[in-house]
Amino acid sequence: MEGKTMDACEEKITGKNVRYLALVAAFLATTSFADESSLVLDHSIIPLEVANSAILLRERALLDNLSVDIVESLTTEVGPRRIGTAGDKRVIAWAQAKFRELGFDRVWTEEVILDRGWTRGEAKAEIVSPYPHNIVLTALGYSVGTGGDLSGEIVEFKSFADLEAVPEGDSLKGKIAFVSYSMRDFVPKAGESASSGYGEGTKARGRGHVVAAKRGAEAIIIRSVGTDNNRYAHTGSGYGYKRGTRKIPAAAISPPDAILIQNMLKRGQPVVLKMNLTSEITGPAKSANIIGEITGRSGSDEYLVLGAHVDSWDEGTGAIDDGAGVGSMMAAAALIGQMDQRPQRSIRVLLFAGEEIGFYGVNAYFAKHEKDLPNHVLGAEVDGGGGRINTLTSGVGDESIAAIREMYKLIAPLGIEWSDANNAKGSSDMSVLGNAGMPALNFSQNSNDYFMYHHTPNDTFDKIIPEDMRYLTAAYATIFYVAAELDIDFRQ
Amino acid sequence: MEGKTMDACEEKITGKNVRYLALVAAFLATTSFADESSLVLDHSIIPLEVANSAILLRERALLDNLSVDIVESLTTEVGPRRIGTAGDKRVIAWAQAKFRELGFDRVWTEEVILDRGWTRGEAKAEIVSPYPHNIVLTALGYSVGTGGDLSGEIVEFKSFADLEAVPEGDSLKGKIAFVSYSMRDFVPKAGESASSGYGEGTKARGRGHVVAAKRGAEAIIIRSVGTDNNRYAHTGSGYGYKRGTRKIPAAAISPPDAILIQNMLKRGQPVVLKMNLTSEITGPAKSANIIGEITGRSGSDEYLVLGAHVDSWDEGTGAIDDGAGVGSMMAAAALIGQMDQRPQRSIRVLLFAGEEIGFYGVNAYFAKHEKDLPNHVLGAEVDGGGGRINTLTSGVGDESIAAIREMYKLIAPLGIEWSDANNAKGSSDMSVLGNAGMPALNFSQNSNDYFMYHHTPNDTFDKIIPEDMRYLTAAYATIFYVAAELDIDFRQ
Repeated sequence: MEGKTMDACEEKITGKNVRYLALVAAFLATTSFADESSLVLDHSIIPLEVANSAILLRERALLDNLSVDIVESLTTEVGPRRIGTAGDKRVIAWAQAKFRELGFDRVWTEEVILDRGWTRGEAKAEIVSPYPHNIVLTALGYSVGTGGDLSGEIVEFKSFADLEAVPEGDSLKGKIAFVSYSMRDFVPKAGESASSGYGEGTKARGRGHVVAAKRGAEAIIIRSVGTDNNRYAHTGSGYGYKRGTRKIPAAAISPPDAILIQNMLKRGQPVVLKMNLTSEITGPAKSANIIGEITGRSGSDEYLVLGAHVDSWDEGTGAIDDGAGVGSMMAAAALIGQMDQRPQRSIRVLLFAGEEIGFYGVNAYFAKHEKDLPNHVLGAEVDGGGGRINTLTSGVGDESIAAIREMYKLIAPLGIEWSDANNAKGSSDMSVLGNAGMPALNFSQNSNDYFMYHHTPNDTFDKIIPEDMRYLTAAYATIFYVAAELDIDFRQ
Repeated sequence: MEGKTMDACEEKITGKNVRYLALVAAFLATTSFADESSLVLDHSIIPLEVANSAILLRERALLDNLSVDIVESLTTEVGPRRIGTAGDKRVIAWAQAKFRELGFDRVWTEEVILDRGWTRGEAKAEIVSPYPHNIVLTALGYSVGTGGDLSGEIVEFKSFADLEAVPEGDSLKGKIAFVSYSMRDFVPKAGESASSGYGEGTKARGRGHVVAAKRGAEAIIIRSVGTDNNRYAHTGSGYGYKRGTRKIPAAAISPPDAILIQNMLKRGQPVVLKMNLTSEITGPAKSANIIGEITGRSGSDEYLVLGAHVDSWDEGTGAIDDGAGVGSMMAAAALIGQMDQRPQRSIRVLLFAGEEIGFYGVNAYFAKHEKDLPNHVLGAEVDGGGGRINTLTSGVGDESIAAIREMYKLIAPLGIEWSDANNAKGSSDMSVLGNAGMPALNFSQNSNDYFMYHHTPNDTFDKIIPEDMRYLTAAYATIFYVAAELDIDFRQ
């Protein structure tokens, strides 16, 4: 463009217009450079004006720090918020106030009953012999306490399967079972989940105490389920005790302490651990899901749902798990709410209680809303940290795939790939609704550092990467804006 | 080389010979490819047979895991070993046994008197208002306790200079001073030290409690001196109390907690901290330096000294600080001791007590050996973790520089640069002897991750990178072998 023409342009386009034109130009440049024009939009599916608004929204979201600010507010003003604790009460108040501050049209809570509470108490452990060492450990959720000092010789199992392979009986009597499985760490390719190794690790975390008890063990310790080598133990949920199962204490030890114990065991002498957990299972309590709605202009009773869980484990401030979800989902909906007009259909942000101990919030939600499920036209959840999206997978009716594929073109410039699998159920809490038939999207995230921090004291605000949070928020805002604007039945 | 010739060769050269020839070939290849033949040795300074032995030693050290195995043994069998503690007693026994096991010719200890001991006790803190939060902190060395709960409003100072700029008096009465300086993190170029930001950080760590007390503060907290953002506090030494100075508790808080407090302060409300340290200064105790010698074959009373400190802070297992030094120095001398014959001059490994609280061991050593200082013909110390060497700097008489420069050529293939500064004094403890006139070498290390872990519970064996430890050990072994073999007075 020559100087003179440029000047003429600059006289006419100022402020929002300049930005608008620049963005459209950038978008057109992106699409025209793409091979085979695969990103050129079909405007019979997404009308030009909706697409333009979506692009503006996306670009604004990329520049807007709101999602990060929300996480900062949550982690600073509330902090840890395990269900049933004082932090849980604080976050219920915080979330309602934040929704209102952000201009949501309707804000409400829905009760969640916690059938049993739990007190973490203190966790101390030391190797008594052959070499005295303090051991960093943390009780797994809903572990019983040790009732004073509990000592036993450590018996190592390389995997949960190895522990299960021991016949039931009392062969581990007087012993402390130690599952030393180290979570597989890898960089997922597009469409892969970083959580594959996590699933293997959570077997012993969730059921180890039951399996070890049936073999006579006095307690179980596991190597923390995480990909880091920091000296933190990663807590997490034990899945509870079946009736009649002997209750034994269960704890995770830090990766460096796991390595230390393995190095001692290599020397061939008995390794004796003394541990003391003052954890306690307590009575029932009340909590709540918190819901904020950007009410659609069409007056229909259909809504799209963006999920995250509002609870966190109690040793960090819950920045990546799941402050990142709370921040990105609240911000995505709030940014849509800042547009010139409300979208056709409503958008609800569902902040679920008690995810960490087993979907308490979403289960209560589903029990209450099962009959309304057809009104939930599309859902997704962020519960994998604040990393960027790498792949979008639909989980919709066959006829709707083309529409989602068109929407996808609007976020492809964020470095996102498309998966043809069409098997999404919505991640984390949202999968409860997805499995019950709600159309869903899965936005796979880069979770490379997620499993280094999550469920530890180290899950704090400084672990949020602002640029990545903005990319994450932009992707959700763009897709959900368009999905709310169009009149598509994603079940079809 | 054709098949037949190769076969003929292989008949004649086996075992050590094969390796020897391969190594010499590799070395010649290195030198002949170097620009301007700058690495071709001057055999009038280093005779061919010494050079060949040095190359063999270097290559053997690169393949030998001994230095790593020593750190594993130290951190597993001894663990934390702050001077005056039970771990200190254990390490004195461990080091003597290890020297003997490694074939050192003479092993002995020399008493070190600790004028005052210190008990860490427990450290707890929480923000009371405006938002309740647990704070991760640790007492700085030789801090007094709080005598129960101590509460005060936090007053932030961005740097130690800002705190010093407050006039003496009682303007901080009832307050807790908070120096929020964040250690500068950078990748040093050749010859630069990663510790530049560390020096700034240690000002408030070492003297903050005195300066804050003179301004009326009830206590001082500092942002941990480290380059990580893990939720550990980095302990370290306060430099004690001058007579007549009011004693106030001093603690470091973790980087994420420092950020949290700063974010609270930004909101403009008073931030009140409650802290409880049960630290206590205790009575005198005895410790020891441990010395192992590879006795030279010449019968002269000259020796070269390789230093490291045997104490560690008490929350980790002291793998990088200074297990890496203990492992690399013991291994370097032991590998020299495994050669066909003893070197001309003796090599002593000096494992110093009580470095962390202010050079107790080396000061005792110097007091005892000041008159023998001329027998210390060359010294160096590792106290910067297990990273590779990036630069060799001499600190010798002018006439000797050429000889050190020749020795340097033997380690240049390890990726090491040469510095012309000739101002080395020996690092850490060894600088006491260097400053008193002992010829010294400084081997600057890659310490990029050192300040992430040091002085925290996270300083554990898994932080040692075996390959880097082998490079580190190989550099020291090679240089000290040649220096012991030649008859050079490095003072000249």
